[in-house]
Amino acid sequence: MERWTFYTAAGTCALATHIALHEAGATFELVKLDLGAQQQQSADYLAINPKGRVPALRTPQGVLTETPALLAFIAQRFPEAGLAPLDNAFAFARLQEFTSYLASTVHVAHAHKRRGARWADDAAAIEAMRLKVPQTMTACASLLEIQLGAGPWVLGERYSVADAYLFTLTGWMDGDGVDMARFPSLQAHHERMARRPAVQRALAEAES
Amino acid sequence: MERWTFYTAAGTCALATHIALHEAGATFELVKLDLGAQQQQSADYLAINPKGRVPALRTPQGVLTETPALLAFIAQRFPEAGLAPLDNAFAFARLQEFTSYLASTVHVAHAHKRRGARWADDAAAIEAMRLKVPQTMTACASLLEIQLGAGPWVLGERYSVADAYLFTLTGWMDGDGVDMARFPSLQAHHERMARRPAVQRALAEAES
Ligand SMILES: N[C@@H](CCC(=O)N[C@@H](CS)C(=O)NCC(=O)O)C(=O)O
Ligand SMILES: N[C@@H](CCC(=O)N[C@@H](CS)C(=O)NCC(=O)O)C(=O)O
Repeated sequence: MERWTFYTAAGTCALATHIALHEAGATFELVKLDLGAQQQQSADYLAINPKGRVPALRTPQGVLTETPALLAFIAQRFPEAGLAPLDNAFAFARLQEFTSYLASTVHVAHAHKRRGARWADDAAAIEAMRLKVPQTMTACASLLEIQLGAGPWVLGERYSVADAYLFTLTGWMDGDGVDMARFPSLQAHHERMARRPAVQRALAEAES
Repeated sequence: MERWTFYTAAGTCALATHIALHEAGATFELVKLDLGAQQQQSADYLAINPKGRVPALRTPQGVLTETPALLAFIAQRFPEAGLAPLDNAFAFARLQEFTSYLASTVHVAHAHKRRGARWADDAAAIEAMRLKVPQTMTACASLLEIQLGAGPWVLGERYSVADAYLFTLTGWMDGDGVDMARFPSLQAHHERMARRPAVQRALAEAES
């Protein structure tokens, strides 16, 4: 297989892609950045990913970023792992609708807790953003709880890369001030995911 | 062909999907919401899209939302239109990386101008967000200018649904305080797009 290098950091959205790589059975070199030390802004890393963020996946064809794109890519490159409904455009769109919502709405709501400086310079404004995170993340959780429904997976009976992403973001919710007891489907999904070997392996590698 | 209904509103990101539908030669009923009158929050519309946003596409299989998902779906459902590199997972991932970045970073940066109340309640904080939009959108434009390069299209020689999305967001930049003279590739791309019949048709239908 071609050489892949995966760039991650503890406690980030990159966990979703990391889990997907293990679910796919991919072989890759793992590089862990220390965000506390601002390694994502080092000249070396900016040469790999000018956005200065994780995740990033280096392949012989080039470097890929953006979680929803990486998740679909891994599912397509490892079709035998069955990580996405590749033969049904509507079902694939449902998966992508879900991952796109997580990236553009849920992750963004969460980022207002510690990354408010992206969108305002004023300290009081950044604090005002932080204060609203429990409310915005609870609204996201309410919508996700309905969409997940009985599950057991995001797409119903079929496991997919979307589950790895949902697991990653529901893992942030308690710390974001969401009362998870109100969201039994999300909680059960999180626990179901935590039992998967690929999830345990990614967590052990990334968070250690 | 099956019946599709497309929900849009003037001046929104839904323009990207609208253009893609016309590029694909899709047949659909068009429903225009008046965001000024808060029609996206009406009970009727929330029954269609509980998120209370546009775009939304109603199909016999269900309602789809989220621009990146819709763009890929249209390209997959109309393969003969050649709107995405469907036979090459890496090239498809490049397209998705681009649309995902537009949705999760560029559109989000723009939304801090008039939708700051999503992320803070305090009037001064919302004003502080508005003030930073020229800076964040200029940073996005700088990255997009490099990625677009010589073009002529986002994927190089090949036109795709990503171009419809880029056109939509570059159309917001001048109003967001970006000095477009600094970004000749984005400007040339915008003008190139404006000459396409599908773009003119979508603009005429949505903005009238
Ligand atoms: N839209 C990107 C977002 C990537 C992102 O924001 N990653 C965060 C970690 S969750 C990061 O690298 N932050 C470092 C920083 O902001 O300096 C995606 O979905 O992959
Ligand atoms: N992540 C969604 C965002 C959709 C969205 O925010 N649409 C805006 C228009 S650009 C909207 O409907 N706003 C109405 C509102 O906020 O009430 C996508 O990419 O489609």
